[in-house]
Formats: sequence, structure tokens, C-alpha cells
Amino acid sequence: MTDFAATRALFNLPDGIVYLDGNSLGPLPAAVPARVAHVMTAEWGTQLIGAWNAADWMGAPQRVGDRVGRLIGAPPGTTVMGDTLSIKLYQALAAALALVPDRHLVLSDSGNFPSDLYIAQGLMATLGPQYRLHVVDPEEVADAITGDVGVLMLTEVDYRTGRLHDIAALTKQAHAVGAVVICDLAHSAGAMAVDVVATDVDFAVGCTYKYLNGGPGAPAFIYVANRHVDVALPALSGWMGHVEPFAFEPHYRPGTGIERMRVGTPPILALAALDAALDVWDDVDLRDVRRRSIELSQAFIAGVEARCPDLVLASPRDPARRGSQVSFRHPHARAVMHALKARGVIGDVRAPDILRFGFTPLFLTDVDVTHAISVLCDVILHERWDPEGVGTGRVT
Amino acid sequence: MTDFAATRALFNLPDGIVYLDGNSLGPLPAAVPARVAHVMTAEWGTQLIGAWNAADWMGAPQRVGDRVGRLIGAPPGTTVMGDTLSIKLYQALAAALALVPDRHLVLSDSGNFPSDLYIAQGLMATLGPQYRLHVVDPEEVADAITGDVGVLMLTEVDYRTGRLHDIAALTKQAHAVGAVVICDLAHSAGAMAVDVVATDVDFAVGCTYKYLNGGPGAPAFIYVANRHVDVALPALSGWMGHVEPFAFEPHYRPGTGIERMRVGTPPILALAALDAALDVWDDVDLRDVRRRSIELSQAFIAGVEARCPDLVLASPRDPARRGSQVSFRHPHARAVMHALKARGVIGDVRAPDILRFGFTPLFLTDVDVTHAISVLCDVILHERWDPEGVGTGRVT
Repeated sequence: MTDFAATRALFNLPDGIVYLDGNSLGPLPAAVPARVAHVMTAEWGTQLIGAWNAADWMGAPQRVGDRVGRLIGAPPGTTVMGDTLSIKLYQALAAALALVPDRHLVLSDSGNFPSDLYIAQGLMATLGPQYRLHVVDPEEVADAITGDVGVLMLTEVDYRTGRLHDIAALTKQAHAVGAVVICDLAHSAGAMAVDVVATDVDFAVGCTYKYLNGGPGAPAFIYVANRHVDVALPALSGWMGHVEPFAFEPHYRPGTGIERMRVGTPPILALAALDAALDVWDDVDLRDVRRRSIELSQAFIAGVEARCPDLVLASPRDPARRGSQVSFRHPHARAVMHALKARGVIGDVRAPDILRFGFTPLFLTDVDVTHAISVLCDVILHERWDPEGVGTGRVT
Repeated sequence: MTDFAATRALFNLPDGIVYLDGNSLGPLPAAVPARVAHVMTAEWGTQLIGAWNAADWMGAPQRVGDRVGRLIGAPPGTTVMGDTLSIKLYQALAAALALVPDRHLVLSDSGNFPSDLYIAQGLMATLGPQYRLHVVDPEEVADAITGDVGVLMLTEVDYRTGRLHDIAALTKQAHAVGAVVICDLAHSAGAMAVDVVATDVDFAVGCTYKYLNGGPGAPAFIYVANRHVDVALPALSGWMGHVEPFAFEPHYRPGTGIERMRVGTPPILALAALDAALDVWDDVDLRDVRRRSIELSQAFIAGVEARCPDLVLASPRDPARRGSQVSFRHPHARAVMHALKARGVIGDVRAPDILRFGFTPLFLTDVDVTHAISVLCDVILHERWDPEGVGTGRVT
């Protein structure tokens, strides 16, 4: 059983706030500053160039990748860190399309994170006019999985509403028609017990600055299923993905397994921060995290709906169909959030009218949730709103 | 006049070493650890998600980009940081090829860094079979600039020999036949007074962990000439390059100017380290750096050739045709370097037989160079070599 009082003690949280935005940027794990300081002074500063071997900087992308892999059900050697989620998605999509050379259709949905759609648009413009991105509503994905789909590209949890796709079922359906599946786990990794092997996705990508608390702009990960890991072509064929980077050969030869998805020189300071942040997970069972997240989220929904019916739930009511966030709609969402933040309750907004609250059991308590409900409803019921979107102070 | 005693004091260098590998990984600037610690604890740890605006994390790629831009002669608003050199080169090459849609030939040379060639190979495989990469010897580049060349893609300074291309002349010649020019400044930025406007290159890219001392895996830069900056297509079209990232529109619209070359969420800790490292350059004139680098390099060559003729100069003898490194060939290069490092003189090797020494006036002195000559020649003349490539100890 995960000890959430113990995990909370592993974070440096400012006094007087309730942080419901760990789904956007996780808070600072207490161990991170000392680890990064060590890498700067004892490794970079002291070992200089020698640290690439002496401190095994060169192995960091796969070593840290395996740690992230454990949290998403990936076997060792199938996950590697680097770059950003958008870059890793580009590689996954290019590799996926190369696996189905006779198909030119990518299916996605309007609940996908826009950057994923932008990256697909950019790749297709590069690949040529025969390629097409088909974007349907999230509810229509299953019906749109037809025999001409080459790649099904989805984000498991909708960044606005928290709506959770049944990735296992959609993957099974996609595989039945010969399509390849890419799953973006940005809002899943660290939020629930992801199992990329059980869901059978072909590729998965994700960022590590949300539920994994790796820090602002922390490196992304890419997972490639074992059946593809020695054949997938990385598209961004940089020297760190070459089978022998230091042979300096004139022609690219992809590296063994997941190493081929590496591109350039790895970001060592950022990887050190993430590595320290991952220590938080050592004694955590993600099934406990999911259970607690649902408890906290359900309590939040019930409390808010009981006390301020002006807020309209934008998330699925069924927790089994929802990730680890709860969203409400309000016509003055931005102004409401401004007022909430002024009172120490921190969530965020997504245009046009979504108030978004993330539930991260590693550091959130029942008391936090009760307080957040109280402040939110007080703000909604007792403040008036500037049409420019900033609260103008209390009226009662 | 740059005060090099003052700049040396800005670095934390371990005692008892002469560091001739600042061309591979620059040493730790003394101000970096405190700056990164501040970003971790006072920004990430305290302001949490709010730091994206409060600490202007969002503006960091362009703010730091302009600081790098000043060192390469780029006007404000034409340089942005992010990702790795390989990624930025991919964007530059894709954008360059899109400017000359009727041409499908990329010209480069065998002195280019292999990752640049690999990235070009990967992009061309994605673009289609009509695209071709033509790689000639460095001396043959000028003759190979014919009317069918779409893009001339060169690294100014050869990573093995230090051979310096005349980028201004080659660019003029390339433009005369309608080609677009990309220059990789990995071994130029911070080593000499680069002027991307005077040389008139269309795109430039580079890393910041060499002469700019940004730290292991520090973010790369991309420069786009003003005439292209609002038309170049970034290929890796991520949300941070969208004109309105937080509008979350379904279709990609490239951002204004150089911002479009941003891709994903920026690496804030790494950008903070680089930003602090760039403070070192505030009172530095790169013409002074170049002059001192030539003095130190010429003294090194003269000293080594006078005392150990077994070493064969691999770099151009004329300093005007050489970057800021000096390379010698030796059949047991790896073993020689091993022995040098054991005695505190740190350079590196490049297969098969290159001993590489970088001259970085910001922290190197005449005494350092004299000592390095002495140790190198002592190692060459008085140690014997294990055929496996490791020195076996002194014989005299």
C-alpha cells in the first residue's frame, strides 16, 4: 500500500497553496536541486569531458528511459528519453507510416493535443500530397477505424476534459484492420497504471514534466513495441541513434533497439533532474495512485456541484472514463482562475471556458481538496467579474 | 581589449589540469550552479506553473537566442534556442529545400560532422527518392557548386582537422547559381568573430556546449536570415512555433519570425545554465579571442614540432585557414591521449588517428600551453604503447 504521507514529504511545496496543476507542471521534488548541483559541480565541473563515460552521461537516455518504462509497463530496452514530446511524436509517426507503406491515412481526433496534430500536419507536408490526416470527434474514433487507416494516433487523456480513451479496445480494432497505433501518454504516465504491453500499442510517447515531476521542459520519452524496435526507422537520424556514434561513419546505420530513437547530444542537466524526480516513484504502486486520484476527484466534483451549480462539469462523470483531472466550464473561466490563484488555489484554464484541476495523490490531501472546493465556491458565489476577465474583488 | 585574466576567473577549473577540450565540452562557468539552483528553487519550486509567465520561461528561447545571436552577428529576432543541433539542422534543411522546390540536390562535404550527413539522409528518405545528397571532399566543394544544387550544407570548421571553410566566398558562389546555404557553426560560435549577415548564409545552426560553455547537451540554436524568417517552414511544426500556441487551434499556423522554429516545451533548466554561461561573454571581443587563439595555437604547433617530430600536423598550417583547434596524427592516438589525461592534459581523439586540442582563450594561458607541449612531447618520446591503445608506463 502506497504511503501518500511519505510521498508528500518528498516534495517542496510552498506554504499556503493547494496545487491542482501537477497535470501541467509537477512541483519540485525535494531531491532534485542537490542532484542537479552534483551533476554540475562534481561531474561537469570536475570530470569535464570525462564525465560522458565516468558518470555514464552517455547511457542516461536509456537508463532513465527504463525507469519511465517501468511506470508505463514497458519492458527494459524499449523506452528512451530525449528531445520533446512533439519531436518524439514526429519520430513515432514517421516510423509508424513506414511500417504501412501502402497506406497514407492517419486517423486522430479533435481531443488530441493540438501539437500532435500540428506535428502530423508538418510531417505529411514533408511526405507528400498522398498523405492525409483525418480528424474526427473523440466519440467517432471507433467508427472511423476503417481498412484504409494506416496509423491511429491518439492521446489517451483529453487535455481539456480529461476524457479517457479505451486504448486497448481501439488498438485491438485498429490492429484488426492492419493499422499501427501511436498513443500519447502525456496525461497518463504517472497518473494511472499504464500498461503499453497489455494495451498492445505499437508506439507510445509522453512528456515527463506533468505527473512525473521532471521539471519545466523535462525530456520526453518514446516507447517502441518489441516487435518493431529493431526495424522502426527514426526519421530524425542523428548521430546518437547511430549504431556506432563514435565511428563517425559517413552513412547512417540505425542503432540496436530503442537506441536508434536517440537523436542528438542528450540534455544531461535535465535528465539528472528527471532521474532524481523519478526516485519519488520507487515505493509507489500506480494502482493506489489511480484509486486515490479517483477518491479526490469524486470528492471535488461532489463538493463543487453541491455548493456552486453555476459550474458545469466538462469531464466525464464516470471516473473510469476520466483521467486524473476534473474540468468545469464557466463563461468567465479566466477570471475565476485569477481569483482562485490570488487565494492560493492553483489550477489552470484552457480556452475558451475550461477550468482545469489536476489530482495528484503523491502530494495532495483530502484537506487540500476540501479547501479547494470551499475557495472555488466562495469565488464563484461571492465575487463579481470584470468583463476583461479579471476578478474585481469581493462583493460580500 | 578583452581581459583574459578576468574571464579565466569566471570559470571553475579543477586544479592541476590543462583543459584543451573546450571545443568538445566547455568547462563550468562559476555562475552557472547558483543560477540553475535559483531557477529550481525560487522559480519552479516556488512559482510553480506561474513561472512560465512570472519568470518569463516562455520567452527564454528567444531571449537567450538573441544573446547567442550577438556572438554570431545575427540581428535580434533571427536566432532561437531549442532541441539539439541535429534537430535544428533538420529544420533548416527542410526549410531550405522548400525554398528551392525545383531542385533536389544537397551538396555537402566529407569534412562535415557525420550527424549532419545522417540527418540529411533521414530527411531525404522522408522527402522521397528524387532527393539526393552529394558529398565531396572539402577541397572540391567550390567546383561542385553547380546550377542543380538546391542547398549547400557545410560545417565551417572541420571537427577532425580544424580546417576552416571560406563560407563567405562559397555562399557568394552558391547564391550566384540560385542555391540556398546552411552553415553549421558548432566549432565557430564562441571561437571566432562569426558574422552571419556579412557571410550572407541563409540558415545557420550550432550547439552551445563547446566554446559557449552551456553544459552537457545544452540547447542548440538556429538562425534564419531576415529575408526568409517569415516564410521559412519549420517542418517540425510543434505548438511552441504556432502563432498562438495557447489558442489550441486545430491547424498549424507558423509563428511570427524566428519563433516558428520553436517546436516543443523549452528546456528551462538547460536554458538557465546556458544563460548564465553567456554572461562570460559580456565584456569579450571575439576578435581578441580569435587573435589569442591563434597565438596559443601557433605556439603549440611550434613547440610540438620542435620537440616531437613523430607527430604529424593534421590541421592547416595557415592559421587563417584553421578554426580554434589543432590536430596531430599519431598511429597510437588513443594511447597517447590516455597517457596525457593521466598527467592532467586533456584533449580528445577522433578515429582513427587524430589527437585533437582545442584552444579557448577565455580560460587558457601561455603557461598552460607550454605545460601541454612539455607533457605531450614527454609522453611521445618517453613512454611505450600497449597495442590495445593504452600506455603501459614510462620506459625512462
